[in-house]
Amino acid sequence: MAMQTWESIGSIAWVGLELLATAAFALSGIVAAGRKHMDVVGACVVGFLSAFGGGTLRDLLIDRRPFFWVEHQSVLVGVLALCVLGVTFMRRRHIDLTEKAILWPDALGLGLFCASGLHLAASHGMPALVAIMMGVVTGAFGGVLRDMVCNEVPALLKDHRPYALCAFAGGCAYMTLQWAGAASLSCALACIGLTTGLRALALLRDWRLPSWHD
Amino acid sequence: MAMQTWESIGSIAWVGLELLATAAFALSGIVAAGRKHMDVVGACVVGFLSAFGGGTLRDLLIDRRPFFWVEHQSVLVGVLALCVLGVTFMRRRHIDLTEKAILWPDALGLGLFCASGLHLAASHGMPALVAIMMGVVTGAFGGVLRDMVCNEVPALLKDHRPYALCAFAGGCAYMTLQWAGAASLSCALACIGLTTGLRALALLRDWRLPSWHD
Amino acid sequence: MAMQTWESIGSIAWVGLELLATAAFALSGIVAAGRKHMDVVGACVVGFLSAFGGGTLRDLLIDRRPFFWVEHQSVLVGVLALCVLGVTFMRRRHIDLTEKAILWPDALGLGLFCASGLHLAASHGMPALVAIMMGVVTGAFGGVLRDMVCNEVPALLKDHRPYALCAFAGGCAYMTLQWAGAASLSCALACIGLTTGLRALALLRDWRLPSWHD
Repeated sequence: MAMQTWESIGSIAWVGLELLATAAFALSGIVAAGRKHMDVVGACVVGFLSAFGGGTLRDLLIDRRPFFWVEHQSVLVGVLALCVLGVTFMRRRHIDLTEKAILWPDALGLGLFCASGLHLAASHGMPALVAIMMGVVTGAFGGVLRDMVCNEVPALLKDHRPYALCAFAGGCAYMTLQWAGAASLSCALACIGLTTGLRALALLRDWRLPSWHD
Repeated sequence: MAMQTWESIGSIAWVGLELLATAAFALSGIVAAGRKHMDVVGACVVGFLSAFGGGTLRDLLIDRRPFFWVEHQSVLVGVLALCVLGVTFMRRRHIDLTEKAILWPDALGLGLFCASGLHLAASHGMPALVAIMMGVVTGAFGGVLRDMVCNEVPALLKDHRPYALCAFAGGCAYMTLQWAGAASLSCALACIGLTTGLRALALLRDWRLPSWHD
Repeated sequence: MAMQTWESIGSIAWVGLELLATAAFALSGIVAAGRKHMDVVGACVVGFLSAFGGGTLRDLLIDRRPFFWVEHQSVLVGVLALCVLGVTFMRRRHIDLTEKAILWPDALGLGLFCASGLHLAASHGMPALVAIMMGVVTGAFGGVLRDMVCNEVPALLKDHRPYALCAFAGGCAYMTLQWAGAASLSCALACIGLTTGLRALALLRDWRLPSWHD
């Protein structure tokens, strides 16, 4: 019984963190829509893609149904409501502020979604490297879809700052621990800690990836 | 027997309207390909995406097979033939004319495809809001894919004219009537009437969606 | 036994050609990433899409799992390693050279992938025209995804040089021979020969597709 209590506290905390990260991802879409002067439909579509795009792409690739937003319609309602509120109340001067404020919950979301995506892919029988890729897709490819629909080269591919690589490192930690026989929860916590920690360090120290030579 | 006769007349009329709407959607793709000076392959790809992209995306999301264009190969042949004819016979001065002429069958197609997409999604057990979204995707996201492949920000997201919102309103009408116990056909007719009517009004009155404040 | 020996030599040759073509496709993605000054993540994503995008899109459309790169993890490792090596060792002056050097293995890959995609689609019960389209998608749509993620109008749609059309002609040859009762292998060889031959002729003679008239 005590074990179950701990588990339910843990799963409530997990859900709370996931909602926070989903909201941060959606806000990054609203910010992108605002920069492109989109209308309320644009904000909803870009916010939806940023929040749910990575997980939906992963589910399409590993052939998993129902999608998260089909199973949890209330989260879908929340994200769409956030998008409508964003267009209604956000002023142009709020956009830069929002972008800075979401950097930290976004880093947390990268770790959380990477771990949960990797766990799902591994439990669908994907081989190790593919499972790690699915973790990276879950955490990072909502942003790729957001940038593609906004007609930009995705920032993930060209801004020379570590983002997907942090998730890749976290995913490698997950698979190594699992291979060593660790429990699912320990693997997930290590993955989240390493991903989010590396991303935070990359932001604080302004790390850059090497570029092409002339 | 009389009932069956009515039903078969109804389904023939339905098929006729769907073909008209599909042709209008394909023409919007040919027009977009013409503006970008694409070749015959480009016209076929963009025309195909405009005509079948929304329904195919919906089918991918609700995991339904076979696609419409796999089941009805003759419609696929028709759309591709239209694209080849478009490149062969359409002159530059025809492009603007075509764009204006297809506004009305396009509005009809938005309603028809929204209703049929919603019906399919609901009969696949999707919850209400998701079913409405699938209706909007069916009617409106062929155009999003068309604009993305043409390297434009999709007009749906940024032209501040109601398009997806008309389909959304029609979808809400469908689900409300269904919840109240109305027959499938009444729901579909209400959805088509409201969607196409709102879109026509939006075109005639030049309605605009509110924009971001500075 | 002798038959089996021939078959195993044939399948080893086939695998070798497929690996060569996959490497050429991946290199076209690395070249595109280099032109856009992307980082190592960008090179891996664009290289992956160029090499596996067409086949993955086909598998999504015909609902086939597992994907090639899930089943053959070693090829996935090879392509990603090639992308990392490309960013590390390729200089700016290598880009044009690489682009020219891969034109010929790329033409071979177009034929090979078209034949294998068509074979898969036909064996999944797709009707003739859809199967041919799936062959074209397998051979040519990795490049479309590559250009879309690089924020360009896909070259396939607008460069007025026959590429998809060569694969389409090869696909028609495949289906005609199959309909006439030829063995799978003969159909495939005819498809590869016609596709690659036409593409090579188009490159050597600088063929152009007709354009829109004013």
